[in-house]
Amino acid sequence: MTKKIALLGSTGSIGSQTLDIVRMHPDKFDITVLAAGKNVDLLAKQINEFKPKIAIIGSKHDCDYLKTNVTASTRVLYGFEGIKEAMYDGEADLVINALVGSRGLGPTCQAIEAGKDVALANKESLVSGGKLVMSLAEKHKVNIIPVDSEHSAIFQCLQGEKRQSLKRLILTASGGPFRQMTKSQIIEMGVKEALKHPNWSMGNKITIDSATMMNKGLEIIEAAWLFKIDLDKIDVVVHPQSIIHSMVEFHDTSVIAQLGLPDMKVPIQYALSYPHRLQNNLMSLSLTDITTLTFEKTDEDKFPCLRLAKEAQRIGKTMPCVLTKANDLLVEAFLKEKISFYGISESIEMLMQKHHSYEYDSLDDLLEVEAWVESALCF
Amino acid sequence: MTKKIALLGSTGSIGSQTLDIVRMHPDKFDITVLAAGKNVDLLAKQINEFKPKIAIIGSKHDCDYLKTNVTASTRVLYGFEGIKEAMYDGEADLVINALVGSRGLGPTCQAIEAGKDVALANKESLVSGGKLVMSLAEKHKVNIIPVDSEHSAIFQCLQGEKRQSLKRLILTASGGPFRQMTKSQIIEMGVKEALKHPNWSMGNKITIDSATMMNKGLEIIEAAWLFKIDLDKIDVVVHPQSIIHSMVEFHDTSVIAQLGLPDMKVPIQYALSYPHRLQNNLMSLSLTDITTLTFEKTDEDKFPCLRLAKEAQRIGKTMPCVLTKANDLLVEAFLKEKISFYGISESIEMLMQKHHSYEYDSLDDLLEVEAWVESALCF
Repeated sequence: MTKKIALLGSTGSIGSQTLDIVRMHPDKFDITVLAAGKNVDLLAKQINEFKPKIAIIGSKHDCDYLKTNVTASTRVLYGFEGIKEAMYDGEADLVINALVGSRGLGPTCQAIEAGKDVALANKESLVSGGKLVMSLAEKHKVNIIPVDSEHSAIFQCLQGEKRQSLKRLILTASGGPFRQMTKSQIIEMGVKEALKHPNWSMGNKITIDSATMMNKGLEIIEAAWLFKIDLDKIDVVVHPQSIIHSMVEFHDTSVIAQLGLPDMKVPIQYALSYPHRLQNNLMSLSLTDITTLTFEKTDEDKFPCLRLAKEAQRIGKTMPCVLTKANDLLVEAFLKEKISFYGISESIEMLMQKHHSYEYDSLDDLLEVEAWVESALCF
Repeated sequence: MTKKIALLGSTGSIGSQTLDIVRMHPDKFDITVLAAGKNVDLLAKQINEFKPKIAIIGSKHDCDYLKTNVTASTRVLYGFEGIKEAMYDGEADLVINALVGSRGLGPTCQAIEAGKDVALANKESLVSGGKLVMSLAEKHKVNIIPVDSEHSAIFQCLQGEKRQSLKRLILTASGGPFRQMTKSQIIEMGVKEALKHPNWSMGNKITIDSATMMNKGLEIIEAAWLFKIDLDKIDVVVHPQSIIHSMVEFHDTSVIAQLGLPDMKVPIQYALSYPHRLQNNLMSLSLTDITTLTFEKTDEDKFPCLRLAKEAQRIGKTMPCVLTKANDLLVEAFLKEKISFYGISESIEMLMQKHHSYEYDSLDDLLEVEAWVESALCF
């Protein structure tokens, strides 16, 4: 029996790799929904190849373009209303949310409300709206399956184990392209340097987040929600080779780790095939070829985003939403060379000091917070 | 509710550490049987402390001594007949077999026939009589729980996973004290040097097995039986730090590993508490303190025992029993400085060439093979 898949963010890095996995297992998966933001030409190709029931593009203009350029009998919709409709009408068993940044939160909520299991590549959903997402998931009895390599690793390590045996999570971090530089060297770094990730091939947003280590900060918050664990039971270890994707320590001091070559296809496939594992022809890890794995402490002075993320989660309520949205906008500004590398963390810190965190109840409350962030950061 | 434990080999390294674990969790475990070979004074102390229902010592002479020197109301028996009786009358829920060498096979069979789950620290049981032990375990529906750190690691990594997803096992090996020497340097090495294990504190027999790497050879055979997997799906990687205790690769290329400081108490406790994990106050692993994990290929020219063990298992039938028993006797001879370091592997190889492997059905068949080995090796 094939699993029916709704893929949100199909033209991005995770989206494209998800489709590669589906191509590798045509008997296991069937794409019934495809959604993308702006890349209309690639989406058109994907629609013609996978013939989903519904496709969604960001704007009405692109939607009209698609309607005349797609040969498949796919229904073409647009915007978040389109995604919402597809969550109900798309017949999916599993929704992969691979949208980029804080815009992923709404569709995550919509998917859960439609009773769909969600494979979450959009960490911002949980960072901004963890309370909302997790309580919705509980209410609608759906599974949230992580796609991030670190959270997938932890999720795998926890299989067959009892929750009460869990002592701490150990997230590994590559350290990004600036790991070995001093703070004064990092100050000089621009977009080109920040986009050179040593191990992983990823989208631009997450590659910059990796350079600032905000990525790891967001992952700590994501892990806290996903695995219902206190922030102080989540450690981060810098592991430049990115072979150990993360670890779990149990209360008998036994540590279980998940390892592999840095290839997002493995955690993506696991999220698609869970609770099963599917055979594939990806490259096996050979530790005698790798020869050495190293581990270092994190440096929150060089990478203040890590500290800011923890602070935001400790304050809680709307503060992580401020952090996430501000980071989205500031990374965009950095990519456009409007601000410097440390401008990202400095502006986030300023904004966090301005914001009085308050309890939220709905997606609308969070959208209001995001609007406030947008108005506070004018580029 | 306490778990009732029969501990065979209570005065050895694994035995003593097992009792340490029991002391740490007096509400969880109750020692009902203690058995030792020769160390009558330590056994007497253990009897007075743990007050088992039954205690067994090797000889009648020591048994008589114990009867007059033990204050507890323990029934004292001797020899393998004594162990057999205790398997039925000792009320144990779990038998820990921590006997040293090939003499462990009989008691393993007796425990299984008495319907007891067996925590197996005696790898020779499975190496010599894998077919017998596994078929008995299946017949009597008992669990065999590994105590060896490597097999415990694999056992832990397989929890919650499906057998058909398993691609290969990756056993790690410290490489022993002679890892960095050339063959001509190793030739010069004596008992003192061979007993210096870099990471693990263990008994003499297993420490020499670690120096010859026969230990890893025996572990390959043990793993093949325990996890019902082909020899060619078991890899060995030299990992001098002994932090990753072993790994499993699944057919999606995902690798799950178990890590920790080299402390036998962790796998012993896991075997006792399985399927649960018990909290303890042992030291947690800090990878940022360890800083580096390295991996090397094995060298079967320098360590021929590794090759011989694989050959014995490929030939199968009675050959692994010959390998095990010969190794037992030859290590003893080496410890008494009657033969040289490479004398161990040379004699095993000669004996394997002499032996025509045949199918066996019972423990008696194997005892006959062992008798043949003994007669062939006269020191």
